[in-house]
Amino acid sequence: MTDDPRATLTRKEGRASSERATLDSLLDEVPVGVLSTVVDGMPWSVPMFFARDGDRVLLHGSTGAGALRQVSDGAPATLTVLSLDGFVVAFNAFESSANYRSAVLRGTLQTLSGPEAAAGLETLTDRLFPGRTREVVPSTTKELSATVCLSLPIAEGSWLYKCREGGSEPPDGEPTRAWTGVVPLRVTAGEPERDAWNTSGAPVPDSVHAILRAYPR
Amino acid sequence: MTDDPRATLTRKEGRASSERATLDSLLDEVPVGVLSTVVDGMPWSVPMFFARDGDRVLLHGSTGAGALRQVSDGAPATLTVLSLDGFVVAFNAFESSANYRSAVLRGTLQTLSGPEAAAGLETLTDRLFPGRTREVVPSTTKELSATVCLSLPIAEGSWLYKCREGGSEPPDGEPTRAWTGVVPLRVTAGEPERDAWNTSGAPVPDSVHAILRAYPR
Repeated sequence: MTDDPRATLTRKEGRASSERATLDSLLDEVPVGVLSTVVDGMPWSVPMFFARDGDRVLLHGSTGAGALRQVSDGAPATLTVLSLDGFVVAFNAFESSANYRSAVLRGTLQTLSGPEAAAGLETLTDRLFPGRTREVVPSTTKELSATVCLSLPIAEGSWLYKCREGGSEPPDGEPTRAWTGVVPLRVTAGEPERDAWNTSGAPVPDSVHAILRAYPR
Repeated sequence: MTDDPRATLTRKEGRASSERATLDSLLDEVPVGVLSTVVDGMPWSVPMFFARDGDRVLLHGSTGAGALRQVSDGAPATLTVLSLDGFVVAFNAFESSANYRSAVLRGTLQTLSGPEAAAGLETLTDRLFPGRTREVVPSTTKELSATVCLSLPIAEGSWLYKCREGGSEPPDGEPTRAWTGVVPLRVTAGEPERDAWNTSGAPVPDSVHAILRAYPR
């Protein structure tokens, strides 16, 4: 971690981690983040699918999209990723909190092109829909040229990971009369819903089974 | 909505809505967002609890926190709120997508003070933990002075709501042989976990029951 104040943990609650494995675990679990940049001196943000690929994060969007016109090659950006893991119900309002894991990556976006872009998009698809590219027809040249693939490097000192876990703290003074504890939260998948127009008779594929395993009920 | 390009929907997928009720429904359901601002010309982001209170969004943090030093009174900010509602598994990679609802609010943060800040913090607590302020000891002057309460106005043209829902589109050409459809996602609450140190014997309170109802299994 650097001395950059933006990379320093200053809140008393919560914990920072500089372990890449901890960061990677969050990035590999949560498929969406918020990408922010600066446009005409003003903050500009958009939620986005993403996928980690080694020491970089891959993002994509339509070449015609306002979103990606703003965050083009060379734009300074943050990608914020959050998992809300529970409500911490404390003995007073002040100590009430959330259990969470979060990461803010900072860096400069790079636009991939040619075979690198095609490979990046394939990786992104297969991370979000595990193995899906093997189940469907290949992308066409037209589709690939309509899609921008951006890369945000994960470098030392370029990210801040924070988390809180566990229960609430007891009061210093007299014991509380209130219930205290945690209400855990998690994202769960429901039953897959086949498109009504799809009369292929194809069974629920491996990619969908993988998503169901990632979000168990 | 204004002509500001940042408030205009340009992606072909997804739908915008200018209905305040639609926006409010999302803001009232999702308790966390990503607050972004500009620091020294660079984007700066932090995940935050928030609560809508009429035509404003309330945020809070520690007076000593780096997070809130950066987004002080008068800072231009975005608050991005997202609900990932499902994976859209299409006949090819290009059409694969997500069902979601998202909002990006843009505005200038205002710091509340005195009784307004105290009331704002109480509202924030009671939105996140419904009715909790009636179940616990009141906040002390010391606690209130250690906490900053910020307000972000919700004004016409200052926000962009987007969503996608429903299944995937069929191919234009020959029918797909692949399974297509949606894997729905939602946030569910687990069994409340009482703090081990808490020997009050207090039953699970109304605030926790309200959280459980908001995140059904």
